[in-house]
Amino acid sequence: TINGERLWNSLMELARIGATPKGGVKRLALTDLDKQGRDLVVSWGKAAGLSITVDKIGNVFMRREGTNPALPPIVSGSHIDTQPTGGKFDGNYGVLSALEVVRTLNDQGIRTEAPIEVAFWTNEEGSRFVPVMMGSGVFCGAFSLEHAYAAKDTEGKTVREELERIGYIGDQTPGDHPIGAYFEAHIEQGPVLEDADKVIGVVPAVLGLSWYDCVVTGMEAHAGPTPMHLRRDALQVATRIMQEVVAIGLRYPPYGRGTVGMVQVHPNSRNVIPGEVKFSVDLRNVSGELLDRMHGEILAFVERTGRETGLGVTIERVSYFPPCPFHPDCVDAVRRATERLGYSTMDVVSGAGHDAIYAARLAPAGMIFVPCKDGISHNEIEDAQPDHLTAGCNVLLHAMLERAKR
Amino acid sequence: TINGERLWNSLMELARIGATPKGGVKRLALTDLDKQGRDLVVSWGKAAGLSITVDKIGNVFMRREGTNPALPPIVSGSHIDTQPTGGKFDGNYGVLSALEVVRTLNDQGIRTEAPIEVAFWTNEEGSRFVPVMMGSGVFCGAFSLEHAYAAKDTEGKTVREELERIGYIGDQTPGDHPIGAYFEAHIEQGPVLEDADKVIGVVPAVLGLSWYDCVVTGMEAHAGPTPMHLRRDALQVATRIMQEVVAIGLRYPPYGRGTVGMVQVHPNSRNVIPGEVKFSVDLRNVSGELLDRMHGEILAFVERTGRETGLGVTIERVSYFPPCPFHPDCVDAVRRATERLGYSTMDVVSGAGHDAIYAARLAPAGMIFVPCKDGISHNEIEDAQPDHLTAGCNVLLHAMLERAKR
Ligand SMILES: NC(=O)NCCC(=O)O
Ligand SMILES: NC(=O)NCCC(=O)O
Repeated sequence: TINGERLWNSLMELARIGATPKGGVKRLALTDLDKQGRDLVVSWGKAAGLSITVDKIGNVFMRREGTNPALPPIVSGSHIDTQPTGGKFDGNYGVLSALEVVRTLNDQGIRTEAPIEVAFWTNEEGSRFVPVMMGSGVFCGAFSLEHAYAAKDTEGKTVREELERIGYIGDQTPGDHPIGAYFEAHIEQGPVLEDADKVIGVVPAVLGLSWYDCVVTGMEAHAGPTPMHLRRDALQVATRIMQEVVAIGLRYPPYGRGTVGMVQVHPNSRNVIPGEVKFSVDLRNVSGELLDRMHGEILAFVERTGRETGLGVTIERVSYFPPCPFHPDCVDAVRRATERLGYSTMDVVSGAGHDAIYAARLAPAGMIFVPCKDGISHNEIEDAQPDHLTAGCNVLLHAMLERAKR
Repeated sequence: TINGERLWNSLMELARIGATPKGGVKRLALTDLDKQGRDLVVSWGKAAGLSITVDKIGNVFMRREGTNPALPPIVSGSHIDTQPTGGKFDGNYGVLSALEVVRTLNDQGIRTEAPIEVAFWTNEEGSRFVPVMMGSGVFCGAFSLEHAYAAKDTEGKTVREELERIGYIGDQTPGDHPIGAYFEAHIEQGPVLEDADKVIGVVPAVLGLSWYDCVVTGMEAHAGPTPMHLRRDALQVATRIMQEVVAIGLRYPPYGRGTVGMVQVHPNSRNVIPGEVKFSVDLRNVSGELLDRMHGEILAFVERTGRETGLGVTIERVSYFPPCPFHPDCVDAVRRATERLGYSTMDVVSGAGHDAIYAARLAPAGMIFVPCKDGISHNEIEDAQPDHLTAGCNVLLHAMLERAKR
């Protein structure tokens, strides 16, 4: 078993870089703080005897050789960039638990047949640069290096410039790096494990995800002198669609999700009937077929609402990730490790996207979830229990050892 | 009849002060531009032989003496401050049509028994400083001079400082100024006259108005990993209430109004279930009894929604103006003048508040509406036809002459 205290201490030390007053972390991708975080993790890798490779999008692989040079590495990792008001565990836990696996193998003098690698991927969060999960996305060919390089932050700085500036633009062509299997340990980012009082979530799949921008265009007018029957109130029409988004989520239990997270009302003045409302729609489900049906329902509803109300209503899909079932070999490796170690467990489908869904396009992949307090993440108050983090890392150790053959 | 060309030219000249590229005007209360506008109107008043009085809240009265010193003045006016993206006519038309009445009396050598006064009130719009209709509100004792003086803009500058700075803090105690009757000509700010193809709106009353802040508090959580049944989605609950606001307006034809104009979603991120939604509610009706019923309905609905959903829901009234029926003497004077002049006409209840509702607390008052293009105001594209503006000013002339006894 791994050294839980060492894992915890490393998490706390990394969390000092970009620490916020409320106990969170702000370490946006490719900033000076990201560089400091990367340097610290790389220094730890070197101290553990690992050799470092950086690819052209700044993904870092830290390698412990195996006994059989013909085998591809068993890789585990995640990301160390955070949300603007992020926590200490999201991503960082996945990277540092992989490092803790290596440290444990070193301590116990265990050799594996396949090499073991600790990876961290560039800009998973997507807060500073879109698209999200950028490093793993380029790595698996979901979009091109040039596309990623050209992404700009709000100040107009590009990914390429910033990678160069912090010294993390490597030589290796992304993807030109074999992977035998990929594991990622992560806080659940949801309430399911805590609600069921379980320690380990075995993750069979990640929900597919469709993101949309919806715009309702009415006619801005003064709230007093404009009689109800002469109004073209964009917000009233928008609220109907917002309710339908949730209704669609509810029609597809247990994995359907329908969320409106972002709303912009124009001109947003107390006594002006809104002339335009823009809002986001986030639909998720576990199979492509179910997600397609949800997609069809929201499009039909929007079209009907435009027709019935006479207002302008448009909806445009802006992102799509297909549902991602993980490879049975990896899922079962996690399940067996959990059972062997005797932790309480349940299957938890991941509702959130992770670097693992891109890694899964290239190699068998699997994830391990541990509970996070109140299901909260992407928040400075994000929290997790040391014994849960230790348990997840133990499961990771055993699953990797099974795949890497000790 | 008045000189429509002179009225139009004065409107266009005043509109140059603070003119915006899109053809509107930005002349916020108590700014340098407001000072320039005030100085111009005062210079026109002096040129027309009027004597100027400024009170402590910066309301300006420009007086033409009558033949009977015992009679209180017949006053007409409005405001010259504008919205940040305001138009050329809102307020300005009321002030300059009163000035045009005086110029016409001068041209034609008409003496009146009662004095005639042209008034402009400080900060009607309330865009820079709250409360709205500040000058007329202090004048009629709706709130104190100290309260108004202490109001701050977003930079922390107070009304008192700014009045001093632009030189419009006068000697007279607000309200210490008799008024025999008050008339205000104004663009309708709504679509009713245009819709019915009428030139003059006789305004029997102004709708009463209740403003509320409503806050729904749920639990912010990640849109992916949080199952529908474990959510506390503040936006979903808020949209129910937003729909009810409009439903209440629709239940009270023809004068009921229900509007949600302003919405703030927290944290307003695409993949985060909203944890808090704040929004405004604007309810209006023509009688206190009907407005009270609407008030009761929204409060009951909010209370029930909180109970049914288990989310925190609060609603707080932040402003209230009772419905304001205008004095039959003034309403009839406007109606008789309109008929005498042969303009097409209808009664139009004002949906928006005006300085006239405060003036009406001290003296008989009435308003004259003219159409504005597409019912649009508080917008740079606000527009009105010269012949309609001329017609409204002719009605004002005749109504004032009836009250001032030529
Ligand atoms: N893990 C995570 O927050 N990913 C962002 C994309 C998503 O909303 O699932
Ligand atoms: N005339 C005008 O826009 N007044 C502001 C207060 C209201 O919304 O009625």
